Amino acid sequence: MLLCDIGNTSYHFYDLKYHYKKNVLDFDPSNITQKVYYICVHHLTCKKLNTLSNWIDLENYIDRKKYYKNMGIDRIIACEAIQNGVIIDAGSAITVDVVKDGVFQGGFIIPGKQAYENTLNAISPALKTKLNFQIDFKNLPKNTNDALSYGFFSGLKKEVESYNLDIILTGGDAQNMQEIFPTAQKDEMLLFKGMEKILQKKDSL
Amino acid sequence: MLLCDIGNTSYHFYDLKYHYKKNVLDFDPSNITQKVYYICVHHLTCKKLNTLSNWIDLENYIDRKKYYKNMGIDRIIACEAIQNGVIIDAGSAITVDVVKDGVFQGGFIIPGKQAYENTLNAISPALKTKLNFQIDFKNLPKNTNDALSYGFFSGLKKEVESYNLDIILTGGDAQNMQEIFPTAQKDEMLLFKGMEKILQKKDSL
Repeated sequence: MLLCDIGNTSYHFYDLKYHYKKNVLDFDPSNITQKVYYICVHHLTCKKLNTLSNWIDLENYIDRKKYYKNMGIDRIIACEAIQNGVIIDAGSAITVDVVKDGVFQGGFIIPGKQAYENTLNAISPALKTKLNFQIDFKNLPKNTNDALSYGFFSGLKKEVESYNLDIILTGGDAQNMQEIFPTAQKDEMLLFKGMEKILQKKDSL
Repeated sequence: MLLCDIGNTSYHFYDLKYHYKKNVLDFDPSNITQKVYYICVHHLTCKKLNTLSNWIDLENYIDRKKYYKNMGIDRIIACEAIQNGVIIDAGSAITVDVVKDGVFQGGFIIPGKQAYENTLNAISPALKTKLNFQIDFKNLPKNTNDALSYGFFSGLKKEVESYNLDIILTGGDAQNMQEIFPTAQKDEMLLFKGMEKILQKKDSL
């Protein structure tokens, strides 16, 4: 059995021992013959996988009533993985979701680092920057680069820390985000944990 | 005598009684014969005005040591206008600057509403939205539109309110921003107040 989380750029596989990635554009899922439990947010790939009988969409085992219509399956699965906490999934977008006693409380979405940098540059070449995850939050910035990094991170930090919950970081920028949230726990396997939980519930029905 | 604040889209004039705007692309500044004290951030216009002897750049009367290198002259003039407070200038970018006892404490910059909406749409069509200034901050969002508006505004609100200072709103989105900061004071004449102060200081030298 394999677990697989398919995002906009890659298949992320986990065989319950090792995990590895394949490019979403050139990997052929029909080469896999064993059973794969997956979640998918990449529309074209989702359609392809629907035609393969050994690929089983975990979406079908989710109690969607606990969440909201159109909420990304990756966010839902991450929430399923924990009992209490705030999950920051930092990828092309950054999603922040709060779970208390196993119940989804709501969440919000902001642009990811790269998209945000692109926007600043599009507003004015004077705002071209590389966001600095090691920004000092103790003093208000007195130069443009710091002013831009502080603008991106400081409100997010205040917002997330106001929940007084454990913080779990996942997604491609989780490592960088650790600088902003030093007490947070980084967990690149979070989605797989959620998927395993869903499977356990399913098997106990 | 006229005062004029030239941004990226318009000349904003003030004759000490009325104020009015002219498009930066088609207005000819050489048509004005009286003395104009101005600030300018629109590079091409700045070059043009440099050649007109009745247009006097207030940049030359600023004590730049109090600020930082490359800080926009519009931000500086806004800071000069107040003694204590946090200024939110909401335009194509949003600048937030803090002044205490007449001294600039620092500030930060985030994308304006339109640029931010464009970014979200560029990340994914699923994130296409019109940011809602009437977003509820009491509850974490449970739908995508609210999740995006909350993501834009909530951290900004927490950050700005953490300063415990009077909030002054200016710029094209000041009216909308009033929804986010209900106790703030809206002041579309803030830059002209700063310019008048600079002129008074200059004359008293």
